[in-house]
Amino acid sequence: MSKQVDLNCDMGESFGAWRMGQDEAVMGLVSSANIACGFHAGDPGTMRETVSLACKHGVNIGAHPGLPDLMGFGRREMQITPQQAYDLMVVQIGALQAVARSQASQIHHVKAHGALYNMAARDLKLARAIAQSVKDVDPSLQLYGLAGSALVEAGAQVGVRVVQEVFADRAYQPDGALVGRQHAQAMIESREAALEQVLNMVLDKRVRAIDGSWLTVQADTICLHGDQPGALEFAQFLHQGLTHAGVRISPPAP
Amino acid sequence: MSKQVDLNCDMGESFGAWRMGQDEAVMGLVSSANIACGFHAGDPGTMRETVSLACKHGVNIGAHPGLPDLMGFGRREMQITPQQAYDLMVVQIGALQAVARSQASQIHHVKAHGALYNMAARDLKLARAIAQSVKDVDPSLQLYGLAGSALVEAGAQVGVRVVQEVFADRAYQPDGALVGRQHAQAMIESREAALEQVLNMVLDKRVRAIDGSWLTVQADTICLHGDQPGALEFAQFLHQGLTHAGVRISPPAP
Amino acid sequence: MSKQVDLNCDMGESFGAWRMGQDEAVMGLVSSANIACGFHAGDPGTMRETVSLACKHGVNIGAHPGLPDLMGFGRREMQITPQQAYDLMVVQIGALQAVARSQASQIHHVKAHGALYNMAARDLKLARAIAQSVKDVDPSLQLYGLAGSALVEAGAQVGVRVVQEVFADRAYQPDGALVGRQHAQAMIESREAALEQVLNMVLDKRVRAIDGSWLTVQADTICLHGDQPGALEFAQFLHQGLTHAGVRISPPAP
Amino acid sequence: MSKQVDLNCDMGESFGAWRMGQDEAVMGLVSSANIACGFHAGDPGTMRETVSLACKHGVNIGAHPGLPDLMGFGRREMQITPQQAYDLMVVQIGALQAVARSQASQIHHVKAHGALYNMAARDLKLARAIAQSVKDVDPSLQLYGLAGSALVEAGAQVGVRVVQEVFADRAYQPDGALVGRQHAQAMIESREAALEQVLNMVLDKRVRAIDGSWLTVQADTICLHGDQPGALEFAQFLHQGLTHAGVRISPPAP
Repeated sequence: MSKQVDLNCDMGESFGAWRMGQDEAVMGLVSSANIACGFHAGDPGTMRETVSLACKHGVNIGAHPGLPDLMGFGRREMQITPQQAYDLMVVQIGALQAVARSQASQIHHVKAHGALYNMAARDLKLARAIAQSVKDVDPSLQLYGLAGSALVEAGAQVGVRVVQEVFADRAYQPDGALVGRQHAQAMIESREAALEQVLNMVLDKRVRAIDGSWLTVQADTICLHGDQPGALEFAQFLHQGLTHAGVRISPPAP
Repeated sequence: MSKQVDLNCDMGESFGAWRMGQDEAVMGLVSSANIACGFHAGDPGTMRETVSLACKHGVNIGAHPGLPDLMGFGRREMQITPQQAYDLMVVQIGALQAVARSQASQIHHVKAHGALYNMAARDLKLARAIAQSVKDVDPSLQLYGLAGSALVEAGAQVGVRVVQEVFADRAYQPDGALVGRQHAQAMIESREAALEQVLNMVLDKRVRAIDGSWLTVQADTICLHGDQPGALEFAQFLHQGLTHAGVRISPPAP
Repeated sequence: MSKQVDLNCDMGESFGAWRMGQDEAVMGLVSSANIACGFHAGDPGTMRETVSLACKHGVNIGAHPGLPDLMGFGRREMQITPQQAYDLMVVQIGALQAVARSQASQIHHVKAHGALYNMAARDLKLARAIAQSVKDVDPSLQLYGLAGSALVEAGAQVGVRVVQEVFADRAYQPDGALVGRQHAQAMIESREAALEQVLNMVLDKRVRAIDGSWLTVQADTICLHGDQPGALEFAQFLHQGLTHAGVRISPPAP
Repeated sequence: MSKQVDLNCDMGESFGAWRMGQDEAVMGLVSSANIACGFHAGDPGTMRETVSLACKHGVNIGAHPGLPDLMGFGRREMQITPQQAYDLMVVQIGALQAVARSQASQIHHVKAHGALYNMAARDLKLARAIAQSVKDVDPSLQLYGLAGSALVEAGAQVGVRVVQEVFADRAYQPDGALVGRQHAQAMIESREAALEQVLNMVLDKRVRAIDGSWLTVQADTICLHGDQPGALEFAQFLHQGLTHAGVRISPPAP
């Protein structure tokens, strides 16, 4: 049987006069683009340009809502209520939907950004509010979330399809959580090791944790990082490695 | 023949911990609510609550996009390009659409706020960008604009239905523009005189300018102000006066 | 010996077109005003007007820096580093210093706002960064902090004078912390009971906790709330009660 | 007699996760740094780092206040009142003063940014409010402004020392204004021609306008741009050319 996986990357994270990422180059390598919606990054013009770029490459468009913290790029956790999370999601999804619609396109998925993503992976109440917001805006949207996390459970409870996300270059704990970035072993530095981890996840539905144990994992989509040094080369390497192993790169089935 | 006119009011202009307006009371008197979308006022929670309030009263919901100037409440003109105006409109309309959709409702119209409204009344290029943004997001939306202004012309050019707006308590210049607020005669202080002006506009399609001359005017909708002292009482007086004169208050026909 | 205590209140928390508080009335009742600096509330014009009002009443001016969260009024905890807290404090203190200097006045104290205040009361590292920021900007400034909290300890370590703050209308836990607002007994509803608590704290340096035990407390300053219903009447009642008991209301000694 | 001129450059225009400019490299070439203060660019951490970098290089520190328009980088003109301009200046100058003071340093000058600079060059009322703000915060501060502009006149009226600024790579109109960027001849592309213009201005106090006529100009300081391609190389070329011609690069005399 032919294997398939989705490659996604955060895009459109420039703001005003400030540039970030290599969207032009990376867009050619992914099947799904998560586009910032103005709260942690992304301004209305950047949103339009990034949607246009995704359309040109035939890449699936997703909303990438974040916390209202431009100064912290949405990476600082904030004590928000589930209702506040719901409201933040709705307006940001809607903003990107309109940008897509104005270009005769549409959005396919939603992925929370940074601290909001991390909080939703741990906190079931918050995760449920986020899943509900997606369902209430458009029940056909897919919700991206950390494989095996609270958000996956929330999606099942609420009735939203969650696309389970794995990381190529991040080490896993035995319970399936990512090793925190403050730890020395958090990042998988060797790209060969990263590719091996990805192939294990995609082909064999398992990943080796830092203690050597094997975990079962559902790898619907792989997250690429677009804003790090060497990000483009790593994306190309991963893309080639997957293709060479017979894995087709395409968006999740609707 | 029975006469009809729309009454609209800006709503949802609170932000975070700060309250503005008397939305609860005014919502019962209008047929259309223009709801702020977060750039000049309105936060995601306020947007949700205001849409909910409009739904409860069966009032038509409109997006009320403004300039990105929270500190100036969107009232200070900014040198933006037509492209920037287009982009600002799209994301703000989309945000409110999603809020409405999440409550199984929808939006019917769009009205630019403050300085953006005034600039669109004068500047045809900007007005065309604004009309185009509305059409590109949803061609069935109605665009509210100053009666006889550049925005009306832009709507005709682009192919968007413009609902022409008049003011009950503002004096008109002989060319149809409003008398600037810096002039002593800008405001019509007597509510009886304001009602008379409204009845002239609605029933006879004309308004007397400050030089005494009569102008032809198309009065599809009347703008109420919700944030001034006595605003509620004035709205009630106007509502009663119109009803008593046999004018039905209801949204513009689709 | 004649007793003395400082009465302080948060002021200048309007923003742009939005009004908050009753600064005009409350300013006449306090000896110290904590003026918002633009990050959680307060815009440059409001800062100027509030400093001017304080000068007119001979009230001591303090900077009231908050988290960069206008939408949440600085009341939502954010995961900031001590360095970020330091930087946020420096620029906000400096902004208000310049406003005071432009009116030939000066600031006397600094009080962190909302979530930043609460975090500094618990987290010694953050508290030390905050105390250091005050010392580095001007070592003669007084730092207001929750009586008995980590900020008092940090001030002693860093070498900044901390003015210990108590609350008239909040219940205390046996360990000296405030009872959280989510608890039914958090607020002291009766103003007579609040006055009694204040007199106990000021005259006898003790407060009765919710379990009935007595705690020792250093009450250098009492916090009034300006933005709640009945706030003004409560402030007047407290002012009168203190005066009647022979307690002089004046700023902390330099 | 030995000639002297100041070289200044805008610095600290990063924001949060977004980088801008080449401050590390350019700081070694200039005598004065204009540091963004958070309204159009610059966050509290960037302000601290940039002040620290300037101190390390012994470069004079100046505040670089801008319009409250992060999305437009302070380059879009806004209809602000003189009072609003005054208030915007005071808080931004004060913020940077505190950052400098926290590093046992101080600021020497103030230069308005972008649209605020341009508006102050034309509009005497606005220029006077800006000059007054500088004087009221610290009368020893120098105010940078376009040579021969309304700001120079305002400084004389108010009693603030204005340092007259010229541009190496911008063409001049016969009346001393810069040729607008929308014109083909706005920029002097050849660096040899730019150096010649600078030497004419510094050594002979004159500049040749685009119509060939010679204008008298007071060149106290030369503006470098740090955020354009080739900016660093141009700065090095100019620095070398001035030094070779016997012109000492140093801040304006106090």
